[in-house]
Amino acid sequence: MAATLLVFSVQVPDVKSDLARALLNDWPAYAAYVISFTTILVVWVNHHGVMENIKTYDRPLVYLNGLLLMFIAAIPFPTFLLAKYFVAGHDESAAAVEYGIVMTCTALTFGAINLYATRRNLFHISFNQFYFLIGNFLYPIGTVAAFFNARLALLIYAAMVIYYGGYPLVREEQVRRASARR
Amino acid sequence: MAATLLVFSVQVPDVKSDLARALLNDWPAYAAYVISFTTILVVWVNHHGVMENIKTYDRPLVYLNGLLLMFIAAIPFPTFLLAKYFVAGHDESAAAVEYGIVMTCTALTFGAINLYATRRNLFHISFNQFYFLIGNFLYPIGTVAAFFNARLALLIYAAMVIYYGGYPLVREEQVRRASARR
Amino acid sequence: MAATLLVFSVQVPDVKSDLARALLNDWPAYAAYVISFTTILVVWVNHHGVMENIKTYDRPLVYLNGLLLMFIAAIPFPTFLLAKYFVAGHDESAAAVEYGIVMTCTALTFGAINLYATRRNLFHISFNQFYFLIGNFLYPIGTVAAFFNARLALLIYAAMVIYYGGYPLVREEQVRRASARR
Amino acid sequence: MAATLLVFSVQVPDVKSDLARALLNDWPAYAAYVISFTTILVVWVNHHGVMENIKTYDRPLVYLNGLLLMFIAAIPFPTFLLAKYFVAGHDESAAAVEYGIVMTCTALTFGAINLYATRRNLFHISFNQFYFLIGNFLYPIGTVAAFFNARLALLIYAAMVIYYGGYPLVREEQVRRASARR
Repeated sequence: MAATLLVFSVQVPDVKSDLARALLNDWPAYAAYVISFTTILVVWVNHHGVMENIKTYDRPLVYLNGLLLMFIAAIPFPTFLLAKYFVAGHDESAAAVEYGIVMTCTALTFGAINLYATRRNLFHISFNQFYFLIGNFLYPIGTVAAFFNARLALLIYAAMVIYYGGYPLVREEQVRRASARR
Repeated sequence: MAATLLVFSVQVPDVKSDLARALLNDWPAYAAYVISFTTILVVWVNHHGVMENIKTYDRPLVYLNGLLLMFIAAIPFPTFLLAKYFVAGHDESAAAVEYGIVMTCTALTFGAINLYATRRNLFHISFNQFYFLIGNFLYPIGTVAAFFNARLALLIYAAMVIYYGGYPLVREEQVRRASARR
Repeated sequence: MAATLLVFSVQVPDVKSDLARALLNDWPAYAAYVISFTTILVVWVNHHGVMENIKTYDRPLVYLNGLLLMFIAAIPFPTFLLAKYFVAGHDESAAAVEYGIVMTCTALTFGAINLYATRRNLFHISFNQFYFLIGNFLYPIGTVAAFFNARLALLIYAAMVIYYGGYPLVREEQVRRASARR
Repeated sequence: MAATLLVFSVQVPDVKSDLARALLNDWPAYAAYVISFTTILVVWVNHHGVMENIKTYDRPLVYLNGLLLMFIAAIPFPTFLLAKYFVAGHDESAAAVEYGIVMTCTALTFGAINLYATRRNLFHISFNQFYFLIGNFLYPIGTVAAFFNARLALLIYAAMVIYYGGYPLVREEQVRRASARR
């Protein structure tokens, strides 16, 4: 699982003394680890929720899921970048932009899965994808923000975890209401 | 699985000769590997035991489990630290403190899962969490001990594996007694 | 899973400034990641499709599958080579040849699985392996091409993903027709 | 899975030119990869075969299995050693001894699982463990041989893969005969 590789985003300091200070200076690496891990977790939980609602898999859906997996498996790379350059204290913007690009690709692929399954009528119940679509706009906005202010971008990425982490709660209720109506 | 990444805690010595001596000098790295691997193993076995006793999962429980996974997936990092700085022979305390912090977070999250499931009445049978709570105190005690004596802290962390490794045996009997009563 | 390790094919640039340019220069590494990830994905989907059609596993089939796994698990290595030497701008041919050798071994092992299962009558339905056999010739052709033109070889490897990615669609129809006839 | 990490045993050469020669010189690394991967594969297949024959799991059996997992997960380390020092051309004996120690621990733990399950009458059918016991002697013999001749030790380790790879075939027949008698 890609999430377990995120641990390599926190580099083992190679110091002759005062390891404690080196570890404290690494705080952006810990933050990057937490943001990426919780992002992958939320994507996984939401993906599980969406897939439970699928009637039947066809080949394009399998490959769209594979594409999603490809972007999720790539998340450690921009996480390593964020951790390294926020600790180093330069080029934070470039790292945050790269992070945003990978996240935007992940969100767009997830959106494409929802769209495809809706169009081909593969969902047991249709559900309101308004909240999902907003996310598809917020990640590119975060990416653009990263050009000007890397810390602001990081706040947006962290906020997205909370935003999408709350999303399934909404959907679950819809599923429950839909089941009740049947 | 995070546990397989622990193998990187033992660095491949880069020597021109006398590899045998270099390998013998690496013993603290082997010890760190064993302590962390068995810790993850015991957490996994106990987590499995607790989850078998769960009636139904709700979203907060899923995210609490995700948080537990996040701390477990972080365990390789302080293990690398322990291995590196015990072999190097300096800054052992800082490494052991970091290790203790990650372990304390893991234990507290596990405790929170138990507490939440008990409060929301999600367990099939309620069970005595006295032994579990003690562990939630012993890890911070080990962390404080690490400030003064890194080796003592390591002994406490190793002892915790045996302590929690014995825990499910107790619970299993309770489950059996409870099943018998039904 | 081997695919998640592919993320290490994109090296975190170690620069003092202008990270953006370093990241843009890394485009061959991204290409290598995408080709290898999608290759593993397509092998996995096709393997799943073939194995669903198996009546019973015997020991040689288990070990042939293990051999396939061994070559798939090796894919990150030539991917790292491709990424490193295409970014460095020299020895691209040697890297592309090594990549082709691993791919040829993977394709041959998959072919051997099909052949063995057909001979021992382990498939529920026999299926036309013409498309599969062509792939077993195209990978060695790509490998030979790599000696003369590394970029052409990469194009062939990328084309193979599309070629084999379309393959199961054909087979699925055959399975459906065969089921209909029963 | 530990086996996928074995790919890191083959180091990506860092050369200015003539990558082809560097790759050819790496042959001992490929050999180490193949020996370790097939060893893990055979252990996994045999372990699966033995566990299918288990009536019920108790806690000691779970922890014995965990111990086995700990030694298997450690296999990449001596594999990295073998690959590095056989390529470097010195200290091969120390690397091969370390490899043999990890293998001996793995074999002994597997033996202990068999012994424990037999003693506690946890197997559906008792089976002849004569072949298994021989392996428990051959790994330490390989380890002792490594002190004098590293290449001979490697041959013994490779032969063990074939030896234990053939083992389940024997057992399977026994299981079939036993089932037939029931």
